[in-house]
Amino acid sequence: MSKSTLYQYGTLALLVPGLFKGTKSIGSLLSHGDTGIGTGDGLDGELVVLDGQPYQIDGSGNVNKLSEDFMVPFADVHFADYKDLFELKDFINPQKLEEAVLSKLNYNNIFFSFRLHGNFDKIVTRSVDKQTEPYPKLVECADKQNEFYGENKVGTLIGYYAPQIFNGPAVGGFHLHFLADDLSIGGHVLDFKVNNGMVKVQPFNNLEQVFPTDSNEFMQHDFSKDDVNGAISKAE
Amino acid sequence: MSKSTLYQYGTLALLVPGLFKGTKSIGSLLSHGDTGIGTGDGLDGELVVLDGQPYQIDGSGNVNKLSEDFMVPFADVHFADYKDLFELKDFINPQKLEEAVLSKLNYNNIFFSFRLHGNFDKIVTRSVDKQTEPYPKLVECADKQNEFYGENKVGTLIGYYAPQIFNGPAVGGFHLHFLADDLSIGGHVLDFKVNNGMVKVQPFNNLEQVFPTDSNEFMQHDFSKDDVNGAISKAE
Repeated sequence: MSKSTLYQYGTLALLVPGLFKGTKSIGSLLSHGDTGIGTGDGLDGELVVLDGQPYQIDGSGNVNKLSEDFMVPFADVHFADYKDLFELKDFINPQKLEEAVLSKLNYNNIFFSFRLHGNFDKIVTRSVDKQTEPYPKLVECADKQNEFYGENKVGTLIGYYAPQIFNGPAVGGFHLHFLADDLSIGGHVLDFKVNNGMVKVQPFNNLEQVFPTDSNEFMQHDFSKDDVNGAISKAE
Repeated sequence: MSKSTLYQYGTLALLVPGLFKGTKSIGSLLSHGDTGIGTGDGLDGELVVLDGQPYQIDGSGNVNKLSEDFMVPFADVHFADYKDLFELKDFINPQKLEEAVLSKLNYNNIFFSFRLHGNFDKIVTRSVDKQTEPYPKLVECADKQNEFYGENKVGTLIGYYAPQIFNGPAVGGFHLHFLADDLSIGGHVLDFKVNNGMVKVQPFNNLEQVFPTDSNEFMQHDFSKDDVNGAISKAE
């Protein structure tokens, strides 16, 4: 597998109506990348893969190492080969960081990965408890999410940028997760403040988009009634 | 390359503002499939690839065999491995055929290829003359397209279905081209009437979406001002 390929299993859109059942194992996912983000079976937490090790930040905020048979409905992975973009010197929040990254690159129209390891003065994340069938819709889960707050946490921001025309298949714009080095906090990123660390990026020529064709629920679902764009902007 | 992979070079969206420059050769495209559709450098005609042979239906309606160094800005190819879906027995038009295909399958949420070889009582196609720089927008070319009309033509309908959330990267719904066996007519399909032939389909688990990252024009273009959905529904 090429280091210029992003492997996406499932689509963000399939989470919108609640197709949360895990249909691919972490073990088979790792053959397509050593770095990434995702969610678990039943929307069971937020996932981070770093250096080939998959972690789950569960709905209570605990960070768990995942076994190879853990199942996922949606994930993005790739083989890490980042390039340094710039060293942070001033305090920066998510919006300013995203603007700074895009302004220094011409990557608006392609997928790329983003990684930053540093000491975060403030980090705010969220995760969701595992849902049971019949699954609720994604926006209903977002209403019940748990938020976690950390100060002076050394850790890694990791995630992806997708071009706006791929909002639906993916999250248009940035989609970032966090994991503290000491595994004390992590999850889907809501806010942060950081003033140190090297911002790294990895652009992709290729998106390998994989569909869960063995899932009858996915194959038979009528997506025409789902407000995918609205749900993504609310929940992600 | 797997027979369950659709290889898409470029995006439909990049044609909308007129990024028509060919950035990949037919030769390198053929290593990813023996069957497909596309357009040429400068929006130079409609392309059909059948059994590994690439053809161009140019703006005058002539069908030309393409050499390996012919360049394309956008194309879809895959390795043919079709399954029979149903035999046509009554006259059918594009809308009825598309409805019949979708009603017999649960493929609405994935990419699949569609192929039908038969005797067409009526076939109406279009193609576009090669454009020169500075390139116009796609909808301006659609306004200047040439239409071709055939009766009693034996030939092949070939193309793809894309899920609606991929409208932008691809054409949501069906995108079909035609090529007559005697090369007397072909192009982007506008209308037809046919009552015989075996309807064949080939589903894909994977979409391999490739971006023209070596094109500065593509990398630097601001797509936020383009009405991609509007242009696709008008031009495609």
